[in-house]
Amino acid sequence: MSCTLNPGRMLSNVRASVPLIQCITNYVTVHDVANIILACGGSPAMVDSEEEAADFLSIAYGLNVNIGTLNKSSAKAIFLAGRRAEELKKPMLLDPVGAGATKYRTKLALSIIDELPVSVVRGNISELMSLYYESGSTRGVDAAAADAVSNVNLHSKVAFAKDAAKRFGCIVAISGAIDLISDGMVCYAVRNGSAKMSTITGTGCQLSGMMTAFIAANNECILEAVLAAACAMGLAGEIAEKKLLPGEGNATYGNRIIDAISLMTEEELNRGARYEVY
Amino acid sequence: MSCTLNPGRMLSNVRASVPLIQCITNYVTVHDVANIILACGGSPAMVDSEEEAADFLSIAYGLNVNIGTLNKSSAKAIFLAGRRAEELKKPMLLDPVGAGATKYRTKLALSIIDELPVSVVRGNISELMSLYYESGSTRGVDAAAADAVSNVNLHSKVAFAKDAAKRFGCIVAISGAIDLISDGMVCYAVRNGSAKMSTITGTGCQLSGMMTAFIAANNECILEAVLAAACAMGLAGEIAEKKLLPGEGNATYGNRIIDAISLMTEEELNRGARYEVY
Amino acid sequence: MSCTLNPGRMLSNVRASVPLIQCITNYVTVHDVANIILACGGSPAMVDSEEEAADFLSIAYGLNVNIGTLNKSSAKAIFLAGRRAEELKKPMLLDPVGAGATKYRTKLALSIIDELPVSVVRGNISELMSLYYESGSTRGVDAAAADAVSNVNLHSKVAFAKDAAKRFGCIVAISGAIDLISDGMVCYAVRNGSAKMSTITGTGCQLSGMMTAFIAANNECILEAVLAAACAMGLAGEIAEKKLLPGEGNATYGNRIIDAISLMTEEELNRGARYEVY
Repeated sequence: MSCTLNPGRMLSNVRASVPLIQCITNYVTVHDVANIILACGGSPAMVDSEEEAADFLSIAYGLNVNIGTLNKSSAKAIFLAGRRAEELKKPMLLDPVGAGATKYRTKLALSIIDELPVSVVRGNISELMSLYYESGSTRGVDAAAADAVSNVNLHSKVAFAKDAAKRFGCIVAISGAIDLISDGMVCYAVRNGSAKMSTITGTGCQLSGMMTAFIAANNECILEAVLAAACAMGLAGEIAEKKLLPGEGNATYGNRIIDAISLMTEEELNRGARYEVY
Repeated sequence: MSCTLNPGRMLSNVRASVPLIQCITNYVTVHDVANIILACGGSPAMVDSEEEAADFLSIAYGLNVNIGTLNKSSAKAIFLAGRRAEELKKPMLLDPVGAGATKYRTKLALSIIDELPVSVVRGNISELMSLYYESGSTRGVDAAAADAVSNVNLHSKVAFAKDAAKRFGCIVAISGAIDLISDGMVCYAVRNGSAKMSTITGTGCQLSGMMTAFIAANNECILEAVLAAACAMGLAGEIAEKKLLPGEGNATYGNRIIDAISLMTEEELNRGARYEVY
Repeated sequence: MSCTLNPGRMLSNVRASVPLIQCITNYVTVHDVANIILACGGSPAMVDSEEEAADFLSIAYGLNVNIGTLNKSSAKAIFLAGRRAEELKKPMLLDPVGAGATKYRTKLALSIIDELPVSVVRGNISELMSLYYESGSTRGVDAAAADAVSNVNLHSKVAFAKDAAKRFGCIVAISGAIDLISDGMVCYAVRNGSAKMSTITGTGCQLSGMMTAFIAANNECILEAVLAAACAMGLAGEIAEKKLLPGEGNATYGNRIIDAISLMTEEELNRGARYEVY
């Protein structure tokens, strides 16, 4: 089958198939992750204990792994679930939150990439660079300003995205003012989004959850599904910003992002998606 | 004492007694559970570690157990707290989230029902059917469409609710488009609610938390308190839907449900409650 | 350097330095804690596992410890992180949620105060009294009405705040209708706030998170920074209440508090801050 660039159609596919997405994710943003998966048309299930993480894969359509806040049990659960995902050929996404901030996280994220069938790694540029260079100097969970993708350094960052995708053997999705999405061959640069998205917690985690729903519902066109999810999230950030009234601040902004996803139509996403290919 | 059907009065009793509700609940919806317990007039305390779960029962008025995301420690805490609840004669509610989705959950929920003094089991129809038939084929945490209670199958589902209440030896509250509430003798069918409630995470968990506050504050009339809480939650879902403006979506809808509970008066609940008895 | 009473300037200092705040906090209110730290200008990172809690201190500017929901691993992580904070001279705040409600919590909070370099203890009057008298009779996580600070008992409560600060060897911040903040020598009484703040979960936890950002960004004037954070939170509670429209209830109120912090200017805080010194 040939995969066409039709982000809106991919959103409609999520709504038509209602993919059940198993999440092993952090407790900071988990509520928003569950709600955005529902808002885009999927069905979330946060199943992360050793006792049942592998078992649940038999009914899940995809696996979203986020290392924002792990304990020993959920760290084990990732590997149990990931190996079952491999057996059952269910797509798996990794969000390496805070990779580079501590040795533990960098090492854990790299071993997930090495040992498990990761289809997509989605993070910010600092996290991805930390993993690539296996050296830790990121600033917590935010991207360092010096690393940011911009029009000035776009070509070198595109080259980095392609290299990282090749090294990790999977699709790499780098979120920021300009998102970069590469499978090692081509690289899309997504122009959707709003600077306000980094003033609230969880927009990255939400994108990872929604992206897993997109790849699960469009699993023969994963690169295009990743692109579609990134466009949808960025567009929701733009819509939320436009709707903000005087006196409304960060919390209301966060709610309006999920509102925008829940109301987004196929046509609206196709009209609003802005990206180019390298 | 004779228990009258007066949902509004039961809400007022919550506000008058401010019952302290101990919750052992999941980290996905915990924030909303705490806030809806506050909004209806109770006082929530999430105390779920082995070290203190039993100890805390001495000051709690009721115990809300939700198995949405457990770890080994909180699973042990359920039994420690439950046995203390039995000694102290404090009412206990079980929300068997995802029962049927994994063997672990089904088994755990059944052993809670067998070993602990559960006053109420509240879940969706698929969860309750899984427990009743001890066989697992539910779809994650959502009810399967084929199981849904409707006017067409109402009489057989009413019979199921009564049978389940008898088998489990407690009140059964089944949430859905039509809620069914039975103690094995009678069965109430609640007509309040909105289809939008299933498009956000946590309305079931919230109802379980609020219901525990209602039974704790009305502990000589538990069946009527369960009915009152179900009517209040459904009515809040209706009010929230009516208030939704163009451009407002799922996240705003979720906030408006808690808003509606916090503003709900005794009269409003009595006027809006819609149920019949079988 | 001399520390002047300029709450607005202290808020601006948070925004200028964007302090990275490591939080070991509870899963009930963690999302709001992260968002209010962002809203005031800081950068939150919830890092609470044994494996990395100490390691992360090397890049954190301050440590916020909240004992609302602990497990064995995070309880250990507090001591690992706290000892590293001492070595690296990073300020540490303790929020002893529910101290007095169970022996386990009272004992844990006291051992944190004894063994770790706590700069500030922030809680409600019941929690602080429980710790001071080492005896447990608080009512869950809410302050008991009998303990509340009011104009009638203000002078005895001021004396208590000063004594507690001396005994604990750190600044004590007591939140309530009137907040009291003392280093053992002076005591500020903050008149900002709204009774509605206690109708939602997490305003105390949020204040602790934001206060840690304020002391980290103003670490040579910690007493004044604690006062500034308390004024900012109370003022946000007032602004949120004024903005509430008919039909808007608790959940919307909670969002408007974070909105107000995100929009608060230096001038607005200085104009709105109301406190006196004893």
